Amino acid sequence: MPSLSQRAGHMPSSPIRKLAPYADAAKARGIDVLHLNIGQPDVPSPDAFWDAIAHHGLKTLEYSPSNGIPALRNRAAHSYTERGIAVTPDQVLVTSSGSEALAFAIGCVCDEGDEVIVPEPMYANYIGFGAYFGAKVVPIATHIETGFALPPAAAFDEVVTSRTRAIIICNPNNPTGTVYSRAQLEALGEVAKKHDLTIIADEVYRDFNYTGHPVPSVLQLPGLDDRVVMTDSVSKRYSLCGARIGFLVTRNTELMGAALRFAQARLSPPTLDSLGVVGAFDTPETYFESMREEYMARRDVVVSLIRSIPGAMCPEIHGAFYATVRLPVDDGDRFCQWLLESFTLENRTVMLAPASGFYVTPGAGHNEVRIAYVLNTERLNQAMDVLEAALEAYPGRLVTR
Amino acid sequence: MPSLSQRAGHMPSSPIRKLAPYADAAKARGIDVLHLNIGQPDVPSPDAFWDAIAHHGLKTLEYSPSNGIPALRNRAAHSYTERGIAVTPDQVLVTSSGSEALAFAIGCVCDEGDEVIVPEPMYANYIGFGAYFGAKVVPIATHIETGFALPPAAAFDEVVTSRTRAIIICNPNNPTGTVYSRAQLEALGEVAKKHDLTIIADEVYRDFNYTGHPVPSVLQLPGLDDRVVMTDSVSKRYSLCGARIGFLVTRNTELMGAALRFAQARLSPPTLDSLGVVGAFDTPETYFESMREEYMARRDVVVSLIRSIPGAMCPEIHGAFYATVRLPVDDGDRFCQWLLESFTLENRTVMLAPASGFYVTPGAGHNEVRIAYVLNTERLNQAMDVLEAALEAYPGRLVTR
Repeated sequence: MPSLSQRAGHMPSSPIRKLAPYADAAKARGIDVLHLNIGQPDVPSPDAFWDAIAHHGLKTLEYSPSNGIPALRNRAAHSYTERGIAVTPDQVLVTSSGSEALAFAIGCVCDEGDEVIVPEPMYANYIGFGAYFGAKVVPIATHIETGFALPPAAAFDEVVTSRTRAIIICNPNNPTGTVYSRAQLEALGEVAKKHDLTIIADEVYRDFNYTGHPVPSVLQLPGLDDRVVMTDSVSKRYSLCGARIGFLVTRNTELMGAALRFAQARLSPPTLDSLGVVGAFDTPETYFESMREEYMARRDVVVSLIRSIPGAMCPEIHGAFYATVRLPVDDGDRFCQWLLESFTLENRTVMLAPASGFYVTPGAGHNEVRIAYVLNTERLNQAMDVLEAALEAYPGRLVTR
Repeated sequence: MPSLSQRAGHMPSSPIRKLAPYADAAKARGIDVLHLNIGQPDVPSPDAFWDAIAHHGLKTLEYSPSNGIPALRNRAAHSYTERGIAVTPDQVLVTSSGSEALAFAIGCVCDEGDEVIVPEPMYANYIGFGAYFGAKVVPIATHIETGFALPPAAAFDEVVTSRTRAIIICNPNNPTGTVYSRAQLEALGEVAKKHDLTIIADEVYRDFNYTGHPVPSVLQLPGLDDRVVMTDSVSKRYSLCGARIGFLVTRNTELMGAALRFAQARLSPPTLDSLGVVGAFDTPETYFESMREEYMARRDVVVSLIRSIPGAMCPEIHGAFYATVRLPVDDGDRFCQWLLESFTLENRTVMLAPASGFYVTPGAGHNEVRIAYVLNTERLNQAMDVLEAALEAYPGRLVTR
């Protein structure tokens, strides 16, 4: 048999997926598994999307332009500009999902053996896209005690090498729910200038923001136009995870030209979904307001329960719909598996994501889990009841008193 | 400004796209540009697809599984098996287009500096996906005089090196319209065994087959299960270029496992389009029969016109909807540009793809063009009239008598 590439060997298999068979087995035993493990919102996709799909008016589902249909690029640029992120349609490339935007951004700046610095815990697929292009993901520690704040410039200076090409941040952050401040981003900008790096900012959770003021974007930083790429998606914003429509946004024309060549190789983003998303941009602001209220209520359920558990720790959560929390357990992977294999409360259990999969540093985050609060408050309260009871019963619980 | 990756510099920009501004300018002058340059069929997408889209029954457009919704993998496997290509659903990975299936296949077997052998002329995006992963596309010549037949084993032996990992073939072939025979594929299989290579077979044009007997698939070759990957798409088969649904099919479980990790990094193929394609598989066989008749009539228009031109050469065309033909011109790139810039017949002109973009070898195919016969016979006859008159008028025509 011919051997596979080293790249294929480096592509990670996520720890959430390792748990999937245990979840399936629990369901097969008739157990109600409450899923707090994935970023799939339960919110209905906007009517404006479904209306546009219903009235597509197509006979032949043709390719769309490699950089996206003009109406979609226009609407996206307009929407950013309305949110104080001034961009023109030619600075927007439509991608087949935020994942593809990330892949293009990394591919545009990294060759094999190059390095990208990412604050950890991190969205696990950054590791995958690094491996995709043979680039090494170099973690930089953030800490639950300081709310997973972006590290100071000096910490970046310590991990930059001659092979460092980029820093990837996720703001608001998956998996921590942290929102980086304008001052933190400006400090990051100085790091990028000092070491001649590109900043790739994954801002897909922009509208999941509970700070009371707009989330700052890297595209708002002056003097960084040539070294900033923002990646985005409609998956979370419009609860359209299955549409696979994202955006790569940059004012660096050379980088945009390269990203376009990547885009041309794969021909086209999905056409019908593109039309639907043009419609989705008509969604009234009230959609986001009620979504925000709903998620804030959910967040409060999680934060107050975790903080009530002796030995647990939950930082301030200002954005996205995740919390990375510390639990009084020996090992997050083992605890999450045990929940699915061995524990129920009123025939329910909970599926969580062990935080180990969000860390590159071995052993880091071993007693943390990520909670995605993507269930309504009733179900979420049930899940928190399960979690509380489970932590009492878990054989590997840490004695905290 | 930070420098881009070498990879980004290696991503090709296709010569068809270089012509696009000239086509736009011609249209701006009110000229009717007949597009024979792209593989976008004019055939309506099947009713069964649109019906499934109209009755999707979704409220939230969620992620689909990374390897595709089970119904789609089942239908695809069933459809292959019906066509004499016995595969099970777990040997089918749903991809976001045939392009993605190709990228995954190349990524699974190639690291930076590895080589893939591809018969030239070739589908230009193989070069792009090679560059994507830092792999070198090594061309192996095929010739218009022999109908662009697959080269014999000895020719492969000459270009194989210690870095060769795979051979990519496209059957039926884009850009030549050639259909490889079972005997040719078997010889290729021996080459793969001898040098321990993987065969990646792009079979997206399987149903565009005018030979009167089924196109042989690499998956039908005995003893090669571990070294064969087939990539496919619904783009051409169901005239669903914009759906971005493709398939990676292999019986090599290790390779499938690696491809799945690539798929997990990008989360999900498009969900709504997946549902539509499940519906499309209900399309009756008569759809393909009438499509086949239509394309055979179109092919005959092209073949007979080209063969009537002194100094031109058109091989036998048995599949796909392309012909790569030799024209009595000094330079195909120049001729195609001249058609758009300087020639009209009854206010019409034709946009063709210069064949140079389908060759890696510098200078090869310089007097060839690819004709995509994707217009109805009336429009195609108009296009052929333009082409015939243009070859009389072109200043760079070769004197052939």
